[in-house]
Amino acid sequence: MSTIDWERGVVEAAHGAGGRAMGQLIEQLFRRAFDNPQLNAGDDFARLEVPAGPLVMSCDAHVISPLRFPGGDIGALSVHGTVNDVAMAGARPLYLAAAFIIEEGFPLAELRAIVESMASAAREAGVSIVTGDTKVVQRGKGDGVFITTTGVGVREEGLVLSGAAARPGDHILISGPIAEHGVAVMAAREQLALSGDLRSDSAALNGLVQAMLNALDDRSQLHALRDPTRGGVAAALNEMAAQSGVAMRIDEASVPLRAEVAAACELLGLEPLQVANEGRLIAICAPEASQRLLTAMRQHTWGTESALIGEVSAGDPGRVSLRTRFGVERWLEPPHGEPLPRIC
Amino acid sequence: MSTIDWERGVVEAAHGAGGRAMGQLIEQLFRRAFDNPQLNAGDDFARLEVPAGPLVMSCDAHVISPLRFPGGDIGALSVHGTVNDVAMAGARPLYLAAAFIIEEGFPLAELRAIVESMASAAREAGVSIVTGDTKVVQRGKGDGVFITTTGVGVREEGLVLSGAAARPGDHILISGPIAEHGVAVMAAREQLALSGDLRSDSAALNGLVQAMLNALDDRSQLHALRDPTRGGVAAALNEMAAQSGVAMRIDEASVPLRAEVAAACELLGLEPLQVANEGRLIAICAPEASQRLLTAMRQHTWGTESALIGEVSAGDPGRVSLRTRFGVERWLEPPHGEPLPRIC
Repeated sequence: MSTIDWERGVVEAAHGAGGRAMGQLIEQLFRRAFDNPQLNAGDDFARLEVPAGPLVMSCDAHVISPLRFPGGDIGALSVHGTVNDVAMAGARPLYLAAAFIIEEGFPLAELRAIVESMASAAREAGVSIVTGDTKVVQRGKGDGVFITTTGVGVREEGLVLSGAAARPGDHILISGPIAEHGVAVMAAREQLALSGDLRSDSAALNGLVQAMLNALDDRSQLHALRDPTRGGVAAALNEMAAQSGVAMRIDEASVPLRAEVAAACELLGLEPLQVANEGRLIAICAPEASQRLLTAMRQHTWGTESALIGEVSAGDPGRVSLRTRFGVERWLEPPHGEPLPRIC
Repeated sequence: MSTIDWERGVVEAAHGAGGRAMGQLIEQLFRRAFDNPQLNAGDDFARLEVPAGPLVMSCDAHVISPLRFPGGDIGALSVHGTVNDVAMAGARPLYLAAAFIIEEGFPLAELRAIVESMASAAREAGVSIVTGDTKVVQRGKGDGVFITTTGVGVREEGLVLSGAAARPGDHILISGPIAEHGVAVMAAREQLALSGDLRSDSAALNGLVQAMLNALDDRSQLHALRDPTRGGVAAALNEMAAQSGVAMRIDEASVPLRAEVAAACELLGLEPLQVANEGRLIAICAPEASQRLLTAMRQHTWGTESALIGEVSAGDPGRVSLRTRFGVERWLEPPHGEPLPRIC
């Protein structure tokens, strides 16, 4: 088998066409980077070893532009996004499938860097990328590379987390400062010279979720988890308020937000509560569990700045209100769309 | 919630942006069409009810152009492609995840037709589409719609089918006439006026696989299944010969091929054995099982023209030879790439 020119080579139509060129790319790139027995078996499917327990499945297409940004790239993001969705079910993510849609002419060196970043993110998160697909589209029919990842994980028997499980009286927690992913990507995209260190929060949160579950004697006190990605905290809370038929109330002053991110949002005309995060989670829990959860969260790498930001009430079902820094009460609406397209 | 204009509306950036517009599209299109309790729960993950047994996972990105072709469309194809990969493991496909990457400006009416075609294909195949994602990219950064599907299924304990399990002496079967998908798509793409009824063979093969397994008292007599998609029969056989470290020999005259498809291939300069199929399978089995399997296959809707086309030998490991219609023996090489790009 000839060697791929990693320095100057580019992706060609044949790399996605099922023949020898694709076989070579799979062999010399994907299998080497992801290296696991399922992928190495060479079939169009993977056989999974799954411990007992109910399964969870989640899926995310990643079309972020630019492909690299401070704090991450599309490769790591495509692992984090799906690992987090599975973890938000209270499940342990085990396996990922990854599908690449690549534009003809994309540099092989860039593809390799992205794939290596995925492999490294998967190792850190403790998941294996066990099966996948590669397709190539003509120039002008794609945009560099799109990566869709689908994850499966196993939930502990009896543990039911759902956005539909919030109850009046529950506390609302967040695991850290908001809006960092959206602002970092926006700054990279527009090549804005903003002050301060703007970096995406992109991270795998399955370890944090495990630490939270371990902190509770009665795990049923944790009702819902959601990662506030597209549409930000505003979208995530409005969705869960609607699913649960409850009202929610947030205290703006208690929501962690770094000064430089707040300044960037002001400059860009963005509402931080509507900006995407990729390494934060919202937890909704019985009030008696919130201190214990916060303590556990703050001891974890990805939760040091966790905070109690609001509570659930029986008021207007499906509505979220915000008490602003100035003491004014207003509705916190979900955005019509994400203010920043192609954010994840 | 306002109503989507299905007649004149087009996909906008907001439809993939996590806010209200996306919620509306999910509610009024995906949930209505796919209608199942997992999707309706409204979480970013699906809880799966899975019977006991080892799991199988497979994943396919679909970028076919044109989106509709005689015999199918990208929606049905995206279900068939993944259902078939899971079925080739000897597993019963149960659940699919579906991710849509849509180009801004794509007509909502076309999207709805594709989604309804997916829903109908899923119902026919007995699988549920339980979770998914929708992303929108700017005009000129995509091509209508790309659909990635990932499937999971359950395999019977002890049943191990793999391309690595072919043994010298095994028989090689095919479930019907070849090259129909590739030729139909090519004719539609180039708007060629070819004679005869050229239609894709796109179909879900899980029922056929079940019928084959049911026909065997000793299921271990079936060694490998593969659907010869991109790269056609030539690619599939070369892959399995390499995985198993065996040689294979095919008799061209015994490979089913309709006269109009053969004529179209000749006109287009294509080798039918290298052209994609989307509703055919290759089975490799112990010689004593082949008659029983062929009988069962021929009684099934998708296997009426099944045939024995060759056998496995201990010769040059990883090589496939072809005895042509003219009695000449030559190597059957896998294509470098698929002769037709964007075929699935």
